[in-house]
Amino acid sequence: MKLSPLGDKVVLKQLEAEETTASGIVLPGNAQEKPQQAEVIAVGPGGVVDGKEVKMQVSVGDKVIYSKYAGTEVKLGDEEFIVVRQNDIVAIVED
Amino acid sequence: MKLSPLGDKVVLKQLEAEETTASGIVLPGNAQEKPQQAEVIAVGPGGVVDGKEVKMQVSVGDKVIYSKYAGTEVKLGDEEFIVVRQNDIVAIVED
Amino acid sequence: MKLSPLGDKVVLKQLEAEETTASGIVLPGNAQEKPQQAEVIAVGPGGVVDGKEVKMQVSVGDKVIYSKYAGTEVKLGDEEFIVVRQNDIVAIVED
Amino acid sequence: MKLSPLGDKVVLKQLEAEETTASGIVLPGNAQEKPQQAEVIAVGPGGVVDGKEVKMQVSVGDKVIYSKYAGTEVKLGDEEFIVVRQNDIVAIVED
Amino acid sequence: MKLSPLGDKVVLKQLEAEETTASGIVLPGNAQEKPQQAEVIAVGPGGVVDGKEVKMQVSVGDKVIYSKYAGTEVKLGDEEFIVVRQNDIVAIVED
Amino acid sequence: MKLSPLGDKVVLKQLEAEETTASGIVLPGNAQEKPQQAEVIAVGPGGVVDGKEVKMQVSVGDKVIYSKYAGTEVKLGDEEFIVVRQNDIVAIVED
Amino acid sequence: MKLSPLGDKVVLKQLEAEETTASGIVLPGNAQEKPQQAEVIAVGPGGVVDGKEVKMQVSVGDKVIYSKYAGTEVKLGDEEFIVVRQNDIVAIVED
Repeated sequence: MKLSPLGDKVVLKQLEAEETTASGIVLPGNAQEKPQQAEVIAVGPGGVVDGKEVKMQVSVGDKVIYSKYAGTEVKLGDEEFIVVRQNDIVAIVED
Repeated sequence: MKLSPLGDKVVLKQLEAEETTASGIVLPGNAQEKPQQAEVIAVGPGGVVDGKEVKMQVSVGDKVIYSKYAGTEVKLGDEEFIVVRQNDIVAIVED
Repeated sequence: MKLSPLGDKVVLKQLEAEETTASGIVLPGNAQEKPQQAEVIAVGPGGVVDGKEVKMQVSVGDKVIYSKYAGTEVKLGDEEFIVVRQNDIVAIVED
Repeated sequence: MKLSPLGDKVVLKQLEAEETTASGIVLPGNAQEKPQQAEVIAVGPGGVVDGKEVKMQVSVGDKVIYSKYAGTEVKLGDEEFIVVRQNDIVAIVED
Repeated sequence: MKLSPLGDKVVLKQLEAEETTASGIVLPGNAQEKPQQAEVIAVGPGGVVDGKEVKMQVSVGDKVIYSKYAGTEVKLGDEEFIVVRQNDIVAIVED
Repeated sequence: MKLSPLGDKVVLKQLEAEETTASGIVLPGNAQEKPQQAEVIAVGPGGVVDGKEVKMQVSVGDKVIYSKYAGTEVKLGDEEFIVVRQNDIVAIVED
Repeated sequence: MKLSPLGDKVVLKQLEAEETTASGIVLPGNAQEKPQQAEVIAVGPGGVVDGKEVKMQVSVGDKVIYSKYAGTEVKLGDEEFIVVRQNDIVAIVED
């Protein structure tokens, strides 16, 4: 089961505070420190949304910061997602 | 009796938590886990809505996630529906 | 005395819960079950409304579902009507 | 002294509940039963209002229904008027 | 010292309830009876305001009715003025 | 250190109630009597702001009246400024 | 790790009250005196944002004043940033 967003919508998955590094070491994180960081799971096709042409600028796998209070929370099976409009994504986090 | 939505409106039927699988086994569900999942029952013709051209992107039978607090609840005979604008549908759920 | 709506306005008459079927039998209804179902009594000419071209899509006699909280209640003689903008009509009910 | 409305504004005079019929008989009315019925006293020239072309569709002498809470109340000498935008007039009452 | 309004702004001076007629007789007025009547003191140049072309339709010396709650109160020396947008003037009072 | 406003923004400095006249006499003022009078300190370049072409109409040194509650207060070193959009300036005060 | 803002967004870093001058002298500052002064860390590409062409007017390294209450606070590792839309930047501070 997967989500296919409409228009300028983007499906995000909030990044867990606890992450495993490339070398496999588990880094205990602090959830309070990354409140709005998420990974892009699916990207809508863009096009004319609300009468305005929107070009999608994020890609699946991007780590992004999104606006607090934005979006619709979705639970699909055991996983939780947040669906936001691209405009609610403020920046891409680059490593 | 059926609903024929105007403009960019879409008639939805909230998915029951309890569903029967293709093989006929009844799976007891958990209503809390799928709060905004619904099936598309009827789709408006789109066209110019509120001065903006809208192209419909959902089809009858699609399972969709829609925005909390959106839409008009309708009771027709024994059945309850929710009528939303297409813009309030955030994603299609694909199996 | 009749109402002639301006622009994209539509005059509605809320459907009584109690209705007579085609065979003449009176079916006691339940007002709670059809809260926003109404019959179209008069339809505005459409045209440019608030700077946007509006094409009327409902006809006199249509049974429609309209958005809760929308419209202006009007009492004319002994009858009560609701005047809504076409955009507040979400769907036509077809038999 | 008279009011000459600007743009899409319309000067209305609320219809008194007590009216004399054509035959001269005074019909005691009930103010509660015609809350938003008014007579058009003066009509603005229309034209470009708030960046949008508006064509006036009501005429002096029309009896109209206007939207509750709309308009500016004006007292001129002994008379009270309501000035509304044409868009706040929902329908013309035809005899 | 005088006020030169920008764009579609209009400087108004609220009409005193007590006025002298052409024949010089002082008519004691009742402030409650003319709450939003004012004289136009200065008129902005109009032009493109907030992306929309505005043509000024009032002139210095016009007596006008303006919308309650609209405008910015200004005290200049001993005099008080109200600066409104032309759109907040609902009608010109003609004698 | 000086402020260079963007777009249609204008940097203002509230006029002190106490001022020195051209002849050098200090006139004790009354702060309550000139609440929104200010001097233009810097003017943005105008251009396309929020999708609309804006032409600047005030100049450095103008005394202006601006809308109450508008603007961003800024403290730079020992001085306090207010940055407003040109649209929040209602009139230029001419001597 | 760095932030790459989308559209008309700008990443800011609030200026510390305590700063070191070019000559290396530490100047104890007063945080209350510079509440909305920040340094531009990254600038979005501009382009069509919300249906309107936006040209970026700030550059990395600019010291700017931004509107109180605007923006999304972001914590990345040990650093805190504020991401605002360019329109929420009211002025560039020039030395």
